[in-house]
Amino acid sequence: MEHTRTGVVHTSISRADPEEVAALSAYGVATIHEAMGRVGLMRPYLRPVYPRARLCGTAVTVLLQPGDNWMLHVAAEQIREGDVVVAACTAESEDGFFGELLATSFRARGGQGLVIDGGVRDVADLERMDFPVFARAVNAKGTIKATLGSVNVPVVCANALVRPGDVVVGDGDGVVVVPRERAAEVAAAAARREAAEEGKRARFRAGELGLDMYGMRGPLAELGLRYEE
Amino acid sequence: MEHTRTGVVHTSISRADPEEVAALSAYGVATIHEAMGRVGLMRPYLRPVYPRARLCGTAVTVLLQPGDNWMLHVAAEQIREGDVVVAACTAESEDGFFGELLATSFRARGGQGLVIDGGVRDVADLERMDFPVFARAVNAKGTIKATLGSVNVPVVCANALVRPGDVVVGDGDGVVVVPRERAAEVAAAAARREAAEEGKRARFRAGELGLDMYGMRGPLAELGLRYEE
Amino acid sequence: MEHTRTGVVHTSISRADPEEVAALSAYGVATIHEAMGRVGLMRPYLRPVYPRARLCGTAVTVLLQPGDNWMLHVAAEQIREGDVVVAACTAESEDGFFGELLATSFRARGGQGLVIDGGVRDVADLERMDFPVFARAVNAKGTIKATLGSVNVPVVCANALVRPGDVVVGDGDGVVVVPRERAAEVAAAAARREAAEEGKRARFRAGELGLDMYGMRGPLAELGLRYEE
Amino acid sequence: MEHTRTGVVHTSISRADPEEVAALSAYGVATIHEAMGRVGLMRPYLRPVYPRARLCGTAVTVLLQPGDNWMLHVAAEQIREGDVVVAACTAESEDGFFGELLATSFRARGGQGLVIDGGVRDVADLERMDFPVFARAVNAKGTIKATLGSVNVPVVCANALVRPGDVVVGDGDGVVVVPRERAAEVAAAAARREAAEEGKRARFRAGELGLDMYGMRGPLAELGLRYEE
Amino acid sequence: MEHTRTGVVHTSISRADPEEVAALSAYGVATIHEAMGRVGLMRPYLRPVYPRARLCGTAVTVLLQPGDNWMLHVAAEQIREGDVVVAACTAESEDGFFGELLATSFRARGGQGLVIDGGVRDVADLERMDFPVFARAVNAKGTIKATLGSVNVPVVCANALVRPGDVVVGDGDGVVVVPRERAAEVAAAAARREAAEEGKRARFRAGELGLDMYGMRGPLAELGLRYEE
Amino acid sequence: MEHTRTGVVHTSISRADPEEVAALSAYGVATIHEAMGRVGLMRPYLRPVYPRARLCGTAVTVLLQPGDNWMLHVAAEQIREGDVVVAACTAESEDGFFGELLATSFRARGGQGLVIDGGVRDVADLERMDFPVFARAVNAKGTIKATLGSVNVPVVCANALVRPGDVVVGDGDGVVVVPRERAAEVAAAAARREAAEEGKRARFRAGELGLDMYGMRGPLAELGLRYEE
Repeated sequence: MEHTRTGVVHTSISRADPEEVAALSAYGVATIHEAMGRVGLMRPYLRPVYPRARLCGTAVTVLLQPGDNWMLHVAAEQIREGDVVVAACTAESEDGFFGELLATSFRARGGQGLVIDGGVRDVADLERMDFPVFARAVNAKGTIKATLGSVNVPVVCANALVRPGDVVVGDGDGVVVVPRERAAEVAAAAARREAAEEGKRARFRAGELGLDMYGMRGPLAELGLRYEE
Repeated sequence: MEHTRTGVVHTSISRADPEEVAALSAYGVATIHEAMGRVGLMRPYLRPVYPRARLCGTAVTVLLQPGDNWMLHVAAEQIREGDVVVAACTAESEDGFFGELLATSFRARGGQGLVIDGGVRDVADLERMDFPVFARAVNAKGTIKATLGSVNVPVVCANALVRPGDVVVGDGDGVVVVPRERAAEVAAAAARREAAEEGKRARFRAGELGLDMYGMRGPLAELGLRYEE
Repeated sequence: MEHTRTGVVHTSISRADPEEVAALSAYGVATIHEAMGRVGLMRPYLRPVYPRARLCGTAVTVLLQPGDNWMLHVAAEQIREGDVVVAACTAESEDGFFGELLATSFRARGGQGLVIDGGVRDVADLERMDFPVFARAVNAKGTIKATLGSVNVPVVCANALVRPGDVVVGDGDGVVVVPRERAAEVAAAAARREAAEEGKRARFRAGELGLDMYGMRGPLAELGLRYEE
Repeated sequence: MEHTRTGVVHTSISRADPEEVAALSAYGVATIHEAMGRVGLMRPYLRPVYPRARLCGTAVTVLLQPGDNWMLHVAAEQIREGDVVVAACTAESEDGFFGELLATSFRARGGQGLVIDGGVRDVADLERMDFPVFARAVNAKGTIKATLGSVNVPVVCANALVRPGDVVVGDGDGVVVVPRERAAEVAAAAARREAAEEGKRARFRAGELGLDMYGMRGPLAELGLRYEE
Repeated sequence: MEHTRTGVVHTSISRADPEEVAALSAYGVATIHEAMGRVGLMRPYLRPVYPRARLCGTAVTVLLQPGDNWMLHVAAEQIREGDVVVAACTAESEDGFFGELLATSFRARGGQGLVIDGGVRDVADLERMDFPVFARAVNAKGTIKATLGSVNVPVVCANALVRPGDVVVGDGDGVVVVPRERAAEVAAAAARREAAEEGKRARFRAGELGLDMYGMRGPLAELGLRYEE
Repeated sequence: MEHTRTGVVHTSISRADPEEVAALSAYGVATIHEAMGRVGLMRPYLRPVYPRARLCGTAVTVLLQPGDNWMLHVAAEQIREGDVVVAACTAESEDGFFGELLATSFRARGGQGLVIDGGVRDVADLERMDFPVFARAVNAKGTIKATLGSVNVPVVCANALVRPGDVVVGDGDGVVVVPRERAAEVAAAAARREAAEEGKRARFRAGELGLDMYGMRGPLAELGLRYEE
C-alpha cells in the first residue's frame, strides 16, 4: 500500500470488470454498503447537486490542491467509457472546482459523473445535462491552475480510500466505494440482500412486526425491557 | 413531570383528540407556532428528506441510543392509526436509523411519518412511498440493535420536549409540538390568525404598507428613526 | 466611504441603469463573478429556498437587528419596480424574519426578491408565489419589532459589501453584487465570456481536451508532472 | 408534566437537598452521567468559557428570547445561596447575553455559576472573578430587554430537560442535570463507581489489560475476532 | 465608497491618530462595541489563537486569495509602528496563511498583531513571541504564492468592513473595528460607559438588583409578567 | 494496497525505526508537513484536548464502530513502548470513547498518546497525567462494547491514511502522518528546512522584507501589481 504523492499521473490502471460494474449499478448505496460489511462509505457531507442524481462507474482518481482545478483537466485525458472522476483535495476547500464546461469534456470522453470533496458551480446546467455530481458545496467562486496534484493515485476522498479502478456508486443516500476485486462478490451479496428484503417487505406490509420477524422479544426481555401501562 | 429513563415501554398513552388533530392539520408550522405563543418549535436543523413532505399526528415517542435503532422496532408495535413516531437520541448521531422497510412497517401499523434527531436512508424510496420524514441527516450507514432505550416516555427531540400523545406537525418550515391538552385551543388560535392574515394579505396586495397597516410610523419616529435624502 | 449606522433611512438612492440590469439578468452568477474579476460574491451559505429560484435587480439595503424584522417593513416603502431587498444583520441570526405576507407586500411595491443573511419561513408559499429568496436558513420562529436598524445604507451581507442601488444577482450557484457603476462593463465582459465559452463548449463536446485547448502540457511538464504506466 | 410557557416567574421552588448537592459536587460530570444511567447530559457544544471552570448547584431556570437578556435580571432576584442559573433560549442565539456586571449581581445573591444555551462576553473578567460559565459561544454583541420569557419553569437547555431545583454539574467534560429526587441516589452510585474505578486503575497501572480484567476475550472470539500475524 | 479590487497596493493611507488609538487600547472589545452603538463587530468565529491575546492598532488591510499568502509579504512593507494587519479572503479558506516567520517580519516592521479570516500555524511560537493573532482556524497546511490580491483597499473581514487606517481592537470577546474618524468619540464614550459601570458594579456587589437599579419592574408588569408561587 | 476490513487484529507490524522517530520528534507538525511535500495532514478539526499537548510515535491503528470503544481495549494489548494509538471510526461519532482509565492502561503498556476521530472525556485527568490526546470533541457520553472493528489494519483517520507502524506527530498545529519508509528522509528534510528558516528568521528580525529575500518584486510586477499613493 502506498501513500499519496503529488506530481504523478498513472496512465494505465486496472478497472473493475464492466459487467460487475453493471451488476452493482442495479443496487442502491445503502444496500451495497451493507453488502460490503459496512465499510467504504464516504462522509455524508457529500450530497448530490440536483435531486435524483445517480452514478455508478470505475474511478479515475484525482488529488487536487485547494482552490486549484488544474488536475481535473489532466484527469479528463485518462477517462475511459464508464469512468467516474473521484476528486480528493489536500485541504478542505469549497471553491467551485468544476462546472458545465468540464462536465461537457468529461462526458465527451465517456465520463459518467463526478464525486468531489470540494465545491462545484453551474448546477442548473449540470441538472439540465443530467451529469451527476456529488459535492460538498455549491460555489460560484472559480479556481486557479498553479500547482501540481496527481491523477490515478490512491486518494482519500471524504474520509474513504479510493484506488483507481475501484467502483464508485452514488445516489440520494450518499457515495460508497467498492474495491475492484470485490465488485462481483459485493454485487452478489447485494442481490441476496435485496431478495431477502423483498420477503420482509411483504410481511411488514401485512402488519407483521420486526419484533416477531427478527425474534427480538427474547433478547429485549433478557436485557430487562419493561412494558408498563 | 418526569425525567427520561431507559428500558421502559409505555403501552397505554393519552393521545390528543383525533378531531383536534385533524383541525391542526389544516395549518402550517409557522402559523401553529405563532398560535401557541412561540414555544414548542424543534431546532431548524431537522429538515424534510424530500420536498413538500408534510405530517401531522399524535406522537409515539422513542428514546434511541446513538447508532442503535432497536427501539424503533419496539415502537412499531405501539403505533395506532394517526400516530407519528418522534425519535430522540441520547447523543448526537447521524447514522441511518431508518429506511424503507421500517417505513413499510410503520405505515402498515397506521403511522403517518417520522421525526428523528438522527439520520435516515433510502430517501428515494421514502419519497416514492410519500412517507414523510424529518431528519437531521441522510446517511447510508446502518445501525445496530444492542442497547435499550425507551418508548412512550417524555423525550427531548431537537431541543423540544415531546410527550407521548402530543401533536406533532411538520412541513417545509420545520417541526412544532402541540401539547395534547392545548390542541383545540391552538387550532382555534391558528384559525383566527389565518383569518386575520387573509385580510392583511389583500391589503398588502393592494400596495398598502405594513408601516401604515400596523401603525408603525409613530413608534419608529419616537425611537428616533430619521429619513434622509 | 462610509461605515454602517443605525437609525437612518435614505429615501433617494442612485440605482443602476435598468437596461444594464436587464443586460446582466441574461447571465448566471458564476459568469458574472468571473466577468467582475472574481470579487463581490456572497458567502455560499446563502442558498435559494426553493429550486430554480433566480433574481436580478437593484438593491434596497436593510440593516436588521437579530431576531427583529421591523426594518423590512420600513424598507417596503422604499422599493421601486425592479428592486431586490438585501438584508444584512448586525449579528448572526437564523430566526424567520420574512414570510409570505411580506413577500406579498414587496411584490406589490415592485420587489423582485430578497437576499437575507438570516432565516425565512412560509417557504412553500414563497415557491407557489415564485418569489425568489436567498437565505441562510429556513425557520418557523418569528421575529419582533423593537429596535432600529437602517434602510439604504451600505451593508455587509454574507461577507459582501452592498450599496443601495448596486445590482444583485442570485441563482443556484449563489449571489453576486455588481457595483452600479460597473453594471454595463460587467454585462459586456459577461457577454464576451459566454461567447468564448460557446466555442470551447463545442470543442469539448467534440472530445478535445483542455490540456490542448489551453496549452497546458508545457507548463505542467515544466513544473515536473510525470506520466507513468 | 408541563410544557414551557412564557411570562411566568415561579418564586417558590423545591431545591435539591444541600447536603446531597455537596455530595454530588465531589464527582466529575462523566462519573455522574454514568451513575445516572447515561441520561441527562447536555449537548457537548456547551463549553466552559475558561479552563478549569467547574460548578455544582441547584437550578434557577430561565427561558430567554433570542438576543434578549431581560429575564436574567428577573432571575437574579430568585437566586438563593448555592444556585446555578440555567438559561435556555426559544431559538438558537449566540449573542452575548451575560457579562461581568450580571456575574457580580448573581454572585452577590449567592449564585455559583451560569449554564447558558447562548453567548456570553467579558470572559477575561469572568475568569478573573472565577465565576464559572458554560456557554455555546463567546460574543461581544450585547442584547436588548424587550420581550418576556420565564423564570423557574421547566426548560430544555442544550437538549436536556431542567426543572427548577434540579442539580446541575459542569466541568471540562460538559454539563449534566440530576433530577432533584435522584440526587442522593446518584451521589451514592457515583461513589460506588469511583471506588470500583480505583481498583481498576491500580490494575491498569500494573499493566493488566481490560481484555482480561473485563473478561472480553471470550465474547470477542465468539463474535469472530481473528488474530493474524 | 469603493468596492474591493485586486492587484493594487496603496502606499499612503490615513491612520487614526496614535493618541486616540492609545486611548481606545484601554477598553475591552465589548465596551468599545457598545460605545460605538453596536456596529463594527467581526463575526465571533474569529478567536485568539492563544489565551489572553490582545491587540489594538491601525489597520493595514490585505485582500488574500484562498490558500495564497503572497499579499501578506506585500503588506509587510506597508506596516508602520502601531499597525495591525487585517487580512480578508475572497473565499472561505482555513489553510495556514501565516506563521512564526511572518510574525517575526511583521514585528520587525512595527506590527502589533494580525486579524485574519483564515487559518494560521506555528501557534506555540506565536504564543511564545506573544504576537497576538485572531484567526478562524489553526492549520499546519501551508499556502502558495500565485495570485494577486490587494493591500490597503477597503476589505470585508469576518463580515465587517475595514478601511486602511481604521482602528482594530481584539481581545477574548472578539474583534471590533472603529472607523478612524470616530476613534476619539468612541474612546470618550467608552470612558463614560466604564465610569457608569463602576457605579453599577458596586451596587450589584452590595446585592442591589438590576430590576430596581434599571427600573424594570414597571415595564415587566405592563407586559404582563406574572409572579406565582 | 488493501481496503479496510472489520474483525481482524494484526499482531505483528513493521514499526518505523525508533531513532528515526526520535529524529522526527524534534520538529513541529507544520515543518514536517512541509518537509513531506504537503501530504499526510489530518483534517484540522482534530485538536489537542489540553494546551501544549504534543506526541510523536509509531501508530497502532484502530477501526472503531460509532459509539463503541471495544477495539481500544483490544488495541491496548498491541501497544509497544513508543506507540501512539490512532483510532478511526466507520462513521462520524463524537461520543466519549476514551478516558483516564484507558489512558492509564495505554501508558502502562508504553503508549505515548492517542489520536482519535471521535470524542474523549476525563480531560482534566488527561491533562494532569500529561497523556496527550488529539480528538474531534470532548464529551462525557460513554460508549458500549458490542461490535467488532479492527486493530492494526490501514485506517483513514480525519481524512488521512494511516498504516500500522507509520509515524504520527501531533502538536498545537494539528496531526501529520509520516509513512514509516519515509521517516528518515522526512526528518532530514525537516532539519534542512529548519536550518534554512533560522537564517531567514534573523534577516526578518533585522527588518528585511520577504519581498526582497524571496525575490518577489519581479514576479509581482509581471502579474501587474500596481502601487498607488
